[in-house]
Amino acid sequence: MAVNEVFQYSIISALMDGVASEGLPVSELISHGDHGLGTFRYMVGEMIILDGKLYQMKSDNTVTPVDTSPASEAVAPFAMVTRFRPTATIKAAFGNKKELFEHLSKVFPDSRNFFLAIRIEGVFKGITVRTAGGQRLVEVGKHQASHTFEEPVRGAVIGFRSPEYTMGISVAGDHLHFITEDRTQGGHILSFRTDGEVEIGAAQIAKWHLELPTNDPEFNKARLEGDKEGIAAVEG
Amino acid sequence: MAVNEVFQYSIISALMDGVASEGLPVSELISHGDHGLGTFRYMVGEMIILDGKLYQMKSDNTVTPVDTSPASEAVAPFAMVTRFRPTATIKAAFGNKKELFEHLSKVFPDSRNFFLAIRIEGVFKGITVRTAGGQRLVEVGKHQASHTFEEPVRGAVIGFRSPEYTMGISVAGDHLHFITEDRTQGGHILSFRTDGEVEIGAAQIAKWHLELPTNDPEFNKARLEGDKEGIAAVEG
Repeated sequence: MAVNEVFQYSIISALMDGVASEGLPVSELISHGDHGLGTFRYMVGEMIILDGKLYQMKSDNTVTPVDTSPASEAVAPFAMVTRFRPTATIKAAFGNKKELFEHLSKVFPDSRNFFLAIRIEGVFKGITVRTAGGQRLVEVGKHQASHTFEEPVRGAVIGFRSPEYTMGISVAGDHLHFITEDRTQGGHILSFRTDGEVEIGAAQIAKWHLELPTNDPEFNKARLEGDKEGIAAVEG
Repeated sequence: MAVNEVFQYSIISALMDGVASEGLPVSELISHGDHGLGTFRYMVGEMIILDGKLYQMKSDNTVTPVDTSPASEAVAPFAMVTRFRPTATIKAAFGNKKELFEHLSKVFPDSRNFFLAIRIEGVFKGITVRTAGGQRLVEVGKHQASHTFEEPVRGAVIGFRSPEYTMGISVAGDHLHFITEDRTQGGHILSFRTDGEVEIGAAQIAKWHLELPTNDPEFNKARLEGDKEGIAAVEG
């Protein structure tokens, strides 16, 4: 796959329906990109991929590097990756997600109907992350661990903004994961702001490659009705 | 692209919004598959691709082979193609689309959440086809030409069944085009039945490659809200 194309495994509606006992081997996933996010078998923790390295961020507040060699047993029931080459990099501060996307809309004024791959490096304040504890995503609202960093923390944000029309397949809107600079803590970002300016790199993406789970009876039987409110509540 | 993967250019919501003055050059489209369907610039007629040959079927009831060399000026504002290799072929008769898909569900019992590529060869009765006359698809209901073959007619049906969750991006459900054996008439199938048994070849597809229009201001500005009822009315 060329640079700045999205490869996606499975669809978010399937994860919402609890289809998470199988997945794509991470060795295959990593062959499609060096930047991305996803989850693990049984939704144990959050996946983040940066610079080709893959980490599992768990609800016990630990982060583990994951073996991505063909010998690895780790799989992703859902993931999105790209071979990320930012086409624009800006320095900016923002007080919330909305302000971040206002900055990106200025740099990519015609990006509304496209994907954006995003990486942000710098110091963040009041960052709140969620880490799924290993259950059906639809129940995450009840069982997830969420953590707010009390002190400003340096780290990297990795993710995508997907167009509205992908709702039910991708996570429409923003989907961002965070990992600290020392790679010891992180999770799925619920809210954050910057402590001064950060570096925001992004690329607009027009090619999207979707691979559906094969040989997974749970996927075959899933209703996949795309509970929009549920996805927004859990992934928003 | 490997065999039995779907390549799609643009999204059906964009076509519904009238985004049809640009498109993918047919020479590029044909490089992704030898079987498929779509439309042409300004939605002038219906596109069908079989055995790597591409035809334009117009509302004046003419069919023209289209040059797919790099010199061709023809473009597809929307199209879906695959490198089709049927994994199952059956002989069966059916009285309507519903019965056709009952046959396919027996052959592909776990295909509900996947794409199916379909080719049917044989003699059809009462086949009604639509050919768009070159306007916004949302107005097709008013301006389309529809034609019902009075006599049994031999020909080929080419198309896809896309899963429900692709609504707004692909044409959820069936999307089938027809061309007569002598390649002189055809269009988008509204209804049909067989005259005795026909040969139905199909393949279940788990990989979907979507390319969005770049450098098309109409696409950039399109609302793409996915009028489900409108798509069902026009493409159903």
